[in-house]
Amino acid sequence: MSGSDTVRAAVLGAGSWGTAYAKVLADAGCEVALWARRAELAAAINARRENGDYLPGVELPDRLTATDDHEAALTGADLVILAVPSQTMRANLRHWAGALGDDATLVSLAKGVELGTHKRMTEVIVEVTGVPADRVAVVSGPNLAKEIASEQPAATVVAATDRGRAELLQRASTTSYLRVYTNTDVVGVELGGAVKNVIALACGMAEGMGFGDNTKASLMTRGLAETARLGVALGADPMTFAGLAGIGDLVATCTSPLSRNRTFGERLGRGETLEQAIAHTRQTAEGVKSCLSILELAAAAGVEMPITEQVVQVCHEGIAPSVAMKYLMRREPKPEHRS
Amino acid sequence: MSGSDTVRAAVLGAGSWGTAYAKVLADAGCEVALWARRAELAAAINARRENGDYLPGVELPDRLTATDDHEAALTGADLVILAVPSQTMRANLRHWAGALGDDATLVSLAKGVELGTHKRMTEVIVEVTGVPADRVAVVSGPNLAKEIASEQPAATVVAATDRGRAELLQRASTTSYLRVYTNTDVVGVELGGAVKNVIALACGMAEGMGFGDNTKASLMTRGLAETARLGVALGADPMTFAGLAGIGDLVATCTSPLSRNRTFGERLGRGETLEQAIAHTRQTAEGVKSCLSILELAAAAGVEMPITEQVVQVCHEGIAPSVAMKYLMRREPKPEHRS
Repeated sequence: MSGSDTVRAAVLGAGSWGTAYAKVLADAGCEVALWARRAELAAAINARRENGDYLPGVELPDRLTATDDHEAALTGADLVILAVPSQTMRANLRHWAGALGDDATLVSLAKGVELGTHKRMTEVIVEVTGVPADRVAVVSGPNLAKEIASEQPAATVVAATDRGRAELLQRASTTSYLRVYTNTDVVGVELGGAVKNVIALACGMAEGMGFGDNTKASLMTRGLAETARLGVALGADPMTFAGLAGIGDLVATCTSPLSRNRTFGERLGRGETLEQAIAHTRQTAEGVKSCLSILELAAAAGVEMPITEQVVQVCHEGIAPSVAMKYLMRREPKPEHRS
Repeated sequence: MSGSDTVRAAVLGAGSWGTAYAKVLADAGCEVALWARRAELAAAINARRENGDYLPGVELPDRLTATDDHEAALTGADLVILAVPSQTMRANLRHWAGALGDDATLVSLAKGVELGTHKRMTEVIVEVTGVPADRVAVVSGPNLAKEIASEQPAATVVAATDRGRAELLQRASTTSYLRVYTNTDVVGVELGGAVKNVIALACGMAEGMGFGDNTKASLMTRGLAETARLGVALGADPMTFAGLAGIGDLVATCTSPLSRNRTFGERLGRGETLEQAIAHTRQTAEGVKSCLSILELAAAAGVEMPITEQVVQVCHEGIAPSVAMKYLMRREPKPEHRS
């Protein structure tokens, strides 16, 4: 703590989820500095109490101040919330590492696995900053940013190997609209968040092809099963996947029209090429990149991930979604759980 | 088997799911007799190859014949599929018991817990017919009848303590559009199917109150957790709830506009009374009745089921859905899984 009872938090990244989580922390009583890369965005947030670029229409609380100066944001911060895309996490951290406080808890909001290294975000954080792993936490759950920002009731999970830090973060982010659960399974919570983007692409494809709720529910269930198989192989607790950061996040992402990955998959399911879908959405969905690193991670761990494999086939090998879906349905019938 | 390689199946109950499952069996190569209570319906099905009352627009295969004579349907049947509502299962079985074949596998499609006795459907079946428990199976999964009938890709679970009977049923119901998994956890598969109707009511209420996908995903996740707690107390395998008959069925029922329980809950969430909702839908959703028997079953097992409890409060104690939702959000924050 920085000399008073008030928790000071720096949120690095002013996209929709970073901004929404900054609002949560401020509503829970923290003093929050929100770092934006662009000075104009920081100034606009301070002037209008609104992030018009990423969270229009949401009034931001007074306890939240935006800045484009990462050193100012990080000075005295008890909690450092890392809210940048997973493929830029490493480069950003290199820039920020020198300004981190000696006892700050580093918290990842990013959901993905690094291309090339196959590292989870908390592994990247430890590697770049040299901070001990027990000072690093992750937040994940069914948390569509726009809904959290509009204060709809939701729940999330904070995971850290140090229970005390998880509980600090829990207190610092519990509000009347967000219920926060703690967990010590960092690996499981992180993988749930990363793989769900890939399964959401598959569900979007099914939607785009005109399939209904049975098909999507089956994809979610079998997708959760392959996520759990990978998790267990990497040391996660299987129960994590039955919780908010597993099924909870998966269901919210796969069913919501607000999910970028689902929407992107829908375009592919309707017959657009990857290039057309990128052109229309003006961005690449997170799962399009991370399906590759997740499949490589699975191969290294000796784990089969048939849905992820078919998403890779569609996104990167030019296979039609209808062919991928037929392949998934035609696999040999078997017992639901292997004994 | 009845003297040939062809499996003979009697499906007792010509509602939407009974009819859709009869079509599945016929498409998989079985000879199917579909029993309807009303002679007019049976005659209409045979004349038009369509169940206009419950599954309009779906062409039924030639291997399926409808009848209102249960003895004719049951004669020589290897598989007896019980597709009547759970609260009428006992009375129907008393009527049918004398006509059952000596080695027939009895299969429950009903999802509920009997009022008064708190018995699961397979327990009722064993009690009324005197058939040994290992001849009784259950089918459950993300199986919205209309989608299965229109041959959209889906998956389901057949559970029986006798693995051979589960595999017979698997072969008898695997088609190009339905993937069938086996499981020996009858208790878990049955409870998943029963409790999901109650959770779907809660999700419908949240929808009716204007809440979004985070809220519903959180309700599904915490709903699955309380289902699994009850299941484990009653001897189920916790992994069953992470599978198709757990999360799979729950997600399909809670997200689909085709689900009667979700739609009924939506009406309550929009402010209709129970009586108004029943008047509008001309029926009581299964979960409205079974929430009471499930809560009693949980109390007897010493298991807390906070969502089920709030659904009982709304449906039977006149509490407003908004009050029930606030109660669910305000419970003390805690670790996600109890150690």
